[in-house]
Amino acid sequence: MNAANTSLLYSPPVLCHFPAMAAPIALIQGASRGLGLEFCKHILKNKTPAAVIATCRNPDGAAELRSLTGQHPGRLTVLRLDVNREEDIRGAAERVKESFGRLDLIVNSSAMLHPSGKGETSLRDVSAQGIIFTLTTNTVGPLVMAKYFAPLLQKGGGGFGQQPAEKAKQHSGIIVNITAKVGSIGDNGLGGWYSYRMSKAALNMATRNLSIELGRSRPKVVCVSLHPGTVNTDLSRPYHRNVPKDKLFSTEQSVSCLMSIVDALNIEKTGKAYNWDGTELPW
Amino acid sequence: MNAANTSLLYSPPVLCHFPAMAAPIALIQGASRGLGLEFCKHILKNKTPAAVIATCRNPDGAAELRSLTGQHPGRLTVLRLDVNREEDIRGAAERVKESFGRLDLIVNSSAMLHPSGKGETSLRDVSAQGIIFTLTTNTVGPLVMAKYFAPLLQKGGGGFGQQPAEKAKQHSGIIVNITAKVGSIGDNGLGGWYSYRMSKAALNMATRNLSIELGRSRPKVVCVSLHPGTVNTDLSRPYHRNVPKDKLFSTEQSVSCLMSIVDALNIEKTGKAYNWDGTELPW
Repeated sequence: MNAANTSLLYSPPVLCHFPAMAAPIALIQGASRGLGLEFCKHILKNKTPAAVIATCRNPDGAAELRSLTGQHPGRLTVLRLDVNREEDIRGAAERVKESFGRLDLIVNSSAMLHPSGKGETSLRDVSAQGIIFTLTTNTVGPLVMAKYFAPLLQKGGGGFGQQPAEKAKQHSGIIVNITAKVGSIGDNGLGGWYSYRMSKAALNMATRNLSIELGRSRPKVVCVSLHPGTVNTDLSRPYHRNVPKDKLFSTEQSVSCLMSIVDALNIEKTGKAYNWDGTELPW
Repeated sequence: MNAANTSLLYSPPVLCHFPAMAAPIALIQGASRGLGLEFCKHILKNKTPAAVIATCRNPDGAAELRSLTGQHPGRLTVLRLDVNREEDIRGAAERVKESFGRLDLIVNSSAMLHPSGKGETSLRDVSAQGIIFTLTTNTVGPLVMAKYFAPLLQKGGGGFGQQPAEKAKQHSGIIVNITAKVGSIGDNGLGGWYSYRMSKAALNMATRNLSIELGRSRPKVVCVSLHPGTVNTDLSRPYHRNVPKDKLFSTEQSVSCLMSIVDALNIEKTGKAYNWDGTELPW
């Protein structure tokens, strides 16, 4: 194994935890903290014997992920992947193909409010650089993930969601794009947060387009946008004082709700945006 | 006048055609060809004594604009502006402020289908670079235009659209973002054209956000997205053989329809996307 491989894959070596054909495989993108980390924990805890591939920009700094690897021997693989770098995504997809051959679920989780950490409160705060950076991470990243991982999802065993009896309607994999209610154009009554809102509206269009292309042929891949609620993460931290306590979810609460939605997904529900409580969001 | 000024402003010198206070002033961004050029022609022909500021990346190559300048002495100013460059936009706004002091209408017209000239027919065609380039031109550009030109629209005389009797509901200016029906997420039944669709969905969110921020305070600026239909331009040329002849509009037909919508705009109609026939488009 050369140096590049060593930095890309984390112990235990991938070939040791190639799951049995029946075991579902989930890839969580943006897994070092926040919602992404919680998706890993939730699946490892509640979906035995599912395998989890956790991707993040800097595995060396992802102490919680490394600790999870030890707690769930042979079930968690950590891959280095910067969603802003197409060559990282392509490389990670090749490694997953070599080692796992298929996927059942991808969750695109990483996102930023704005490079400054605060959403624009008015037009004065808008900059071309800020919005391009936000769009690249929140919108382009998930779409390029879909490009390289869709072929693996099409080889999946349909280990997540609900499979209808009719074989033609069964799905092999699921793509979840973490969106935000503020990305709903129709629901937008307050304005502000230009970059974030626009990035999530464009991501919702990606979800819709993916659901059409990947739902057309067999095997089918389901694709949805999910709004996690206002969650106690670094992204929302500057705004916590404005959020009523019962509306500020822990990552555990949010991911538990989102995985309930995932558990009930099928091809009839593809191509839509859902709130954390399962209700459909307007575009 | 230094060299920079010479390249930015075209004859006749701006100060010669400072319009009377009552004359409306329209700025058309992306005016060297296609819909943008037609907006200039239409306003010069049908909205006398309105002044037109036409912006394009390369005035030296814009022969039709130069010819229009001669046909309408003192009414057309050509400014160099690359919508991908924030410093160009800022500089142009400063020049317009110095020479005109206000604006009544901006039409953000320039757009690309994809840097390759063809929309992606499938995920395989998607590239990070292609979508970022498309988003930068189609989405970021119009938003940054709004950032720098909104203060001039807030000083406008409300020379376009319909003014209600109630003073509190009157508008000083209008922003028109040229969108596309394929940018409607709810209307998307075919998929494909990832970059273009996503850029227009994000642009629609920008429209919505702008309508809220600029409609909140006085003076009010109206902001709408308009779909021009399928128009005989360079953008759509690769697809003309798939379009029934009666559905392929000339730029004259399209702009005539769009200006009818603009003529009827008021603050009650802000923040929405309209089809060329005036019907509202879903988000």
